[in-house]
Amino acid sequence: MQPLSDCTVTVIGLGLMGGSLAGALRGHCKEVIGVDRDTAIVEAAVRGRFADRGTVDLAEGVAGADIVVLATPVRTIVRLLGELGPLVHAEALLMDLGSTKTQILKAMAHLPDTIQPLGGHPMCGKETSGIAAADIALFRERTFILSPLPRTSPEALELGASLAKAVGAMPLVIGAERQDFLVGTLSHLPYLLACSLVSTADVTTSADPLVWHIPAGGFRDTSRVAGSDVTMMLDILMTNRGEIVKAARLCADQLDQLIQLVEEGDETRLGAELSRIQRIRKEMYP
Amino acid sequence: MQPLSDCTVTVIGLGLMGGSLAGALRGHCKEVIGVDRDTAIVEAAVRGRFADRGTVDLAEGVAGADIVVLATPVRTIVRLLGELGPLVHAEALLMDLGSTKTQILKAMAHLPDTIQPLGGHPMCGKETSGIAAADIALFRERTFILSPLPRTSPEALELGASLAKAVGAMPLVIGAERQDFLVGTLSHLPYLLACSLVSTADVTTSADPLVWHIPAGGFRDTSRVAGSDVTMMLDILMTNRGEIVKAARLCADQLDQLIQLVEEGDETRLGAELSRIQRIRKEMYP
Repeated sequence: MQPLSDCTVTVIGLGLMGGSLAGALRGHCKEVIGVDRDTAIVEAAVRGRFADRGTVDLAEGVAGADIVVLATPVRTIVRLLGELGPLVHAEALLMDLGSTKTQILKAMAHLPDTIQPLGGHPMCGKETSGIAAADIALFRERTFILSPLPRTSPEALELGASLAKAVGAMPLVIGAERQDFLVGTLSHLPYLLACSLVSTADVTTSADPLVWHIPAGGFRDTSRVAGSDVTMMLDILMTNRGEIVKAARLCADQLDQLIQLVEEGDETRLGAELSRIQRIRKEMYP
Repeated sequence: MQPLSDCTVTVIGLGLMGGSLAGALRGHCKEVIGVDRDTAIVEAAVRGRFADRGTVDLAEGVAGADIVVLATPVRTIVRLLGELGPLVHAEALLMDLGSTKTQILKAMAHLPDTIQPLGGHPMCGKETSGIAAADIALFRERTFILSPLPRTSPEALELGASLAKAVGAMPLVIGAERQDFLVGTLSHLPYLLACSLVSTADVTTSADPLVWHIPAGGFRDTSRVAGSDVTMMLDILMTNRGEIVKAARLCADQLDQLIQLVEEGDETRLGAELSRIQRIRKEMYP
């Protein structure tokens, strides 16, 4: 395969992730083409210099592409994988940026043999969405998970890794199921916790509306990801249900144990448990 | 009572909160005296210009103070309130910075009649602790809860509000029980959730150590407060057990409901619920 600098890259879906990736790739490849179903978004992407040119026509957008990156919600990625086979250049690298990988890789396995498929998941995001929130620095210093299929060539994986590095990220190769297990705990569970916290505060509001006027830093951070795009999150939750439910039940058990220690006033055990957790957190983020 | 600019202020406990407050008050009052039981911390506070002078002697530290601020963990505050009566200037304003107020105000009620007690709780903090983490900007733009007792004079409350404004905070007057109810949801519950998340990830680690090598932004933020000082948090949890247990059980119910919707794959209800929560989060932090 040719080096990234000689490639035309088409990014499909110009939201926060796709727009940011397209913009970050400019200058690292021959041309960046942006595709979105919404004309206004395509225009905003080109005007904001996130893409060299753009189109709402999928076939036109991918026709000359050496690399195609799907940056839509997960189930739209799965659907588009069913349509792209005949439209994409025979030898193209076809990647995605979806947060769950198992179902996407299953769909990728049905692509025409000559196409090189590669699952991708950059571990970044914001609680804002859309091209207006796009930021070419979004991927810097972030882990960019790459999940190859058995059929993916070493050269295609290498090109995918170059793309990740070009936007400032650190590629990490993991199989699809292992990635879905890991992000179930690291990314999808925090979302459910943040949602539960906001929902709890909302119930509390009915007892005391002042709850909304005391901005606590801990609350703000712990609830941040509850502001994430719902269409994106719903697709993630629906395509990683098994792992998410397992991780969330485990977490509910941990919470119950802590509640019980607080209720019983068992300071010795509670203190030991909180110290253990504090130590782990400090090891994770020194 | 004299204006803040004429007051000598003594801050007891030179950790993150006390050190930051002492430093932020310098220039807004006559003199800032720092008290800590640890000589090295007193020296660090004076060297770092967080206090004009300092001492490890409680009686000496508070002898000339017009305002005394207790900035230790909650149960140390309660204990010190039992000792300070005979040591503090008869007309002094005696405040604290503890995160829970009910037990502290009960102890304040037993102070000699001439002393003016006032509960205080600046809604800020960090997951780091100690004088090394002190920051005079810590209180800027933050809500500073003030909980007066029935015996607290309007002038004393006014002086407390001046102190809060002097460090850049916005004073908000709330009764002790209402404040404990509100921060149970807004501050103490996020801590338990963050701890549960870290503990869950730790269980997951035993299955896959790679979990520690994928830094996810959502995980980092949602787990941040799990790094908080354990002595401080244990005192908070033990002195606000009722409200915290209630809020945490409510949150556990919310989490269970979300888990069930994910498990059942009930997209319509899940989507509606997540949209509702996203809207609330965006209203809280526009």
